[in-house]
Amino acid sequence: MHILVLGGAGMAGRKFIERLARDGQLGGKTIAKVTAQDVVAAQAPAGASFAFETVVSDVSVPGQAEALIASRPELIVHLAAVVSGEAEADFEKGYKINLDGTRYLFEAIRLAGDSYKPRLVFTSSVAVFGAPFHEKIEDEFFTTPLTSYGTQKAICELLLSDYTRRGFFDGISIRFPTICVRPGTPNKAASGFFSNIIREPLNGIDAVLPVSEQVRHWHASPRSAVNFLIRASTMDLNEVGPRRALTMPGYSCTVAEQIEALRKVAGEGVVARIKRVPDPVIDRIVAGWPQNFNAARATALGFTSEASFEEIIRVHIEDELGGNFVK
Amino acid sequence: MHILVLGGAGMAGRKFIERLARDGQLGGKTIAKVTAQDVVAAQAPAGASFAFETVVSDVSVPGQAEALIASRPELIVHLAAVVSGEAEADFEKGYKINLDGTRYLFEAIRLAGDSYKPRLVFTSSVAVFGAPFHEKIEDEFFTTPLTSYGTQKAICELLLSDYTRRGFFDGISIRFPTICVRPGTPNKAASGFFSNIIREPLNGIDAVLPVSEQVRHWHASPRSAVNFLIRASTMDLNEVGPRRALTMPGYSCTVAEQIEALRKVAGEGVVARIKRVPDPVIDRIVAGWPQNFNAARATALGFTSEASFEEIIRVHIEDELGGNFVK
Repeated sequence: MHILVLGGAGMAGRKFIERLARDGQLGGKTIAKVTAQDVVAAQAPAGASFAFETVVSDVSVPGQAEALIASRPELIVHLAAVVSGEAEADFEKGYKINLDGTRYLFEAIRLAGDSYKPRLVFTSSVAVFGAPFHEKIEDEFFTTPLTSYGTQKAICELLLSDYTRRGFFDGISIRFPTICVRPGTPNKAASGFFSNIIREPLNGIDAVLPVSEQVRHWHASPRSAVNFLIRASTMDLNEVGPRRALTMPGYSCTVAEQIEALRKVAGEGVVARIKRVPDPVIDRIVAGWPQNFNAARATALGFTSEASFEEIIRVHIEDELGGNFVK
Repeated sequence: MHILVLGGAGMAGRKFIERLARDGQLGGKTIAKVTAQDVVAAQAPAGASFAFETVVSDVSVPGQAEALIASRPELIVHLAAVVSGEAEADFEKGYKINLDGTRYLFEAIRLAGDSYKPRLVFTSSVAVFGAPFHEKIEDEFFTTPLTSYGTQKAICELLLSDYTRRGFFDGISIRFPTICVRPGTPNKAASGFFSNIIREPLNGIDAVLPVSEQVRHWHASPRSAVNFLIRASTMDLNEVGPRRALTMPGYSCTVAEQIEALRKVAGEGVVARIKRVPDPVIDRIVAGWPQNFNAARATALGFTSEASFEEIIRVHIEDELGGNFVK
């Protein structure tokens, strides 16, 4: 089979493609080729038995989607997006890439003719929800985003369900929890500290905690994110029915619990590298974020994630640090 | 003030403009001019003290929205839409008019410059909901439409909330119940019978009831629809907060209760003109429709509708039949 990954150079795309390279197959079908599209060239995964192609393009340019699906990939995983902060700072860019770009893709598939009907996995976000929330957000809670990014994701979910219902493709939208521990270096995302306070201390580096330890949030590891993509790519989507947007499972905990888990896994010396530097701006942003979900539908449909924050830390140490950290 | 009504030749637009002509003012402000846009020329209301202009145009043609707002109307009431059946039959036309047309309008306002920030009232629909429902749909229930029309309305609601949050205009989306009793002649809408079985017998004409008397539905009169538009046009929208889509109040009853109300208001002779001709196709369509709502937010915000189906029938006899009907 041929798999097209939009946003293939990003963290989730790269890890998904590496997993495909390790597995060599997806849902029992041998992978012949993976095409990774992004605004920068994606790196070829190590040891892949399939052909790998990287396409540098901008999904928001008309005609690009048609070119990407010209070879009729059976599976399209759409991870390409302008992130939340950028979509808020640049209104036009956010709508152009996150909404128009997605719609160009959907339209290209609809108009392909020749009975082309791929599986389409779209990554959405819990940013489709806007405060105030119930303590645990249920699957039937309404989507009232408080960011343009969340609005764009919610709109794409609606389009995906309608295009699926009309038979143009077989789609599913999966809403990622905050991915933690994010590999790499600290970035400027307001959510960055959730990962920074684990990743940096494990590397022997101090990290800043800008919010209260009482802040509660919803996490899943990068490994779980890849598992969500695999499950969404291979499951029988008829089981999902017409409501094609699913909140993925995750683990809800406070920052205090994150720190306690780090203490258990890595010890007091590592925890001591977390420095408390309150930032009222970040505090205010984070106060509007969802804290907990009851992801009953996704769980019933076989999506799984970590059952503790300790497990999330151990996954990071295994997958990113080769089992070692700086005591 | 200058008021622009998109879809001004339709039933709700016409009645809204007639009401404006009777009142001469809106929210205490004298109305200087009303512009009615539609794909056909709108009729001038009788006895209006304001200037009336009719514009024949297609909202889905780029550039038309800019022309419509060139004179900077303070209030825009957006009723223009391809109806549910047509949006389902013609996928492209539905998206072009119901989604792209609305987005062109929103973009024209955003890009107007000169601090233009009108009030924008958008009529949405309970078609944003898709079965299965709770028995009474709450304000926080999620929108999972099962038609392209409902999808387009739900998307426009999301856009309206985001454009409002970003400060480009001051918008509100109001979801109409099924409007009953619709004036005019029987049409082919699957929902037509809810009105036909009242309107036609009151005119001395037989009407077909194609579904079971146990079918329950959610109704408001055309007079209430106009009241919703007036309230949405004049209230302080800060009270609404960032969640700018509201389900309007209505009256939930079964067809049996509709018939019983007709019997009380108009007598047995009128009721005898309802002929039962079961139509399994319509029965199946209607089974997927919402039956009842708890429109708590809209009610708390001062939106009101009829408290009984008898009242809905009496409103029809007063407003459409000059107080008379064929016994």
